[in-house]
Amino acid sequence: MPDTASPQTTGPDSAAGYQPTERTVPTRSRDRAAYDRELVHSILDEAYVCHLGFVRDGSPVVLPTLFGRVGERLYVHGSTGSRPLREAGRTDPGLPVCLTVTHVDGLVLARSAFHHSINYRSVVVHGVARTVTDPKERRTALDAIVDHVVPGRSADSRPADEKELAATAVIRLDLQEVSAKIRTGGPNDEPRDLELPHWAGVVPLAHGYATPLPSNDLDPAIGVPDYIAAL
Amino acid sequence: MPDTASPQTTGPDSAAGYQPTERTVPTRSRDRAAYDRELVHSILDEAYVCHLGFVRDGSPVVLPTLFGRVGERLYVHGSTGSRPLREAGRTDPGLPVCLTVTHVDGLVLARSAFHHSINYRSVVVHGVARTVTDPKERRTALDAIVDHVVPGRSADSRPADEKELAATAVIRLDLQEVSAKIRTGGPNDEPRDLELPHWAGVVPLAHGYATPLPSNDLDPAIGVPDYIAAL
Repeated sequence: MPDTASPQTTGPDSAAGYQPTERTVPTRSRDRAAYDRELVHSILDEAYVCHLGFVRDGSPVVLPTLFGRVGERLYVHGSTGSRPLREAGRTDPGLPVCLTVTHVDGLVLARSAFHHSINYRSVVVHGVARTVTDPKERRTALDAIVDHVVPGRSADSRPADEKELAATAVIRLDLQEVSAKIRTGGPNDEPRDLELPHWAGVVPLAHGYATPLPSNDLDPAIGVPDYIAAL
Repeated sequence: MPDTASPQTTGPDSAAGYQPTERTVPTRSRDRAAYDRELVHSILDEAYVCHLGFVRDGSPVVLPTLFGRVGERLYVHGSTGSRPLREAGRTDPGLPVCLTVTHVDGLVLARSAFHHSINYRSVVVHGVARTVTDPKERRTALDAIVDHVVPGRSADSRPADEKELAATAVIRLDLQEVSAKIRTGGPNDEPRDLELPHWAGVVPLAHGYATPLPSNDLDPAIGVPDYIAAL
């Protein structure tokens, strides 16, 4: 899968999709690129965590974190003491970030070592993250982050109080410079390799949920809510 | 899960573990940090892809990619035409990178929105990636990357030929500045929230494999090998 180390790319221009930019211009594997908004949204929404990259003292830092989406805006939250969130608040006009989400759908086994790969769906968002200060937008963002973990959950939990809100920083990243990249299907073996005696194909990965485990201190009268059972 | 946006950290110094450095000194959630080599290796080895961060034109870039591990060395490969691999070869003494691996083990639902989290295991590696030029080490690295997808696979596939090797760049990142971070267990609700009527607990995520799908052009006499069936 040499190509997965290449930059994420956007496809051709389209009024319905994200516009390509210099840094999302594809150098390779253009056929795997996508720019469709609904597709990008679906890949983002299926993820539990993103990988947020930023630059600190000239070096890259990549951290996993929860996130939420409201339309064309992504939100990340954290302690007001955490480094990237402090830096997003300090930097004018914001903190340059790259937010990436990846789903691995299958292992692609080719006859040749060279053509081994994975089936995957990824989204890469470039942009500048800015601290959210508007109280209403902060509430909306925090609800979105909780609902990103389990849809419907924010309405079935105690909202943050003033002290918790004061301890929480929220940053926003707009979906503008965005691309998706997708690989599907079987191995792309060389014609000369088709007669080799090696098994070739795809091992799909299966994702699911195990039985919810209630907290030890949960009132047994409180059953698993429908929105969790429906996962 | 505000804390997951905070830097990955290392624990106390230990001859058996990775040594903390300035940028891995914990600022928060020290109890979730780990520096044990075997633990770090196990988290790395369980992953299919890592997220590789580097800096391009002053901005961060985070890309998913396959990787392999040989002892205390990580390897990433790619087309000689891909941007980060070109830059690793051009830059002296190498390309500063941050390589991160994350497993999401469960969704943590607290009574309060604030204490929602996920159970996860992550590893963050800081360092400088260097292009591997030694032919023997390149072969070892490429085998490790294939075996990282499916252990045992490199011995059951056609090795790269000279043309494929010439098209493939390999970079190495040594495991020196490394930390793991782990969250397990149930929600950490505030005592005053325990009587609230919201379900609280953990929804574990289940990961597995579906039935392997042979290529359409595979000789039906070639069955699924044991090392795949054993996944």
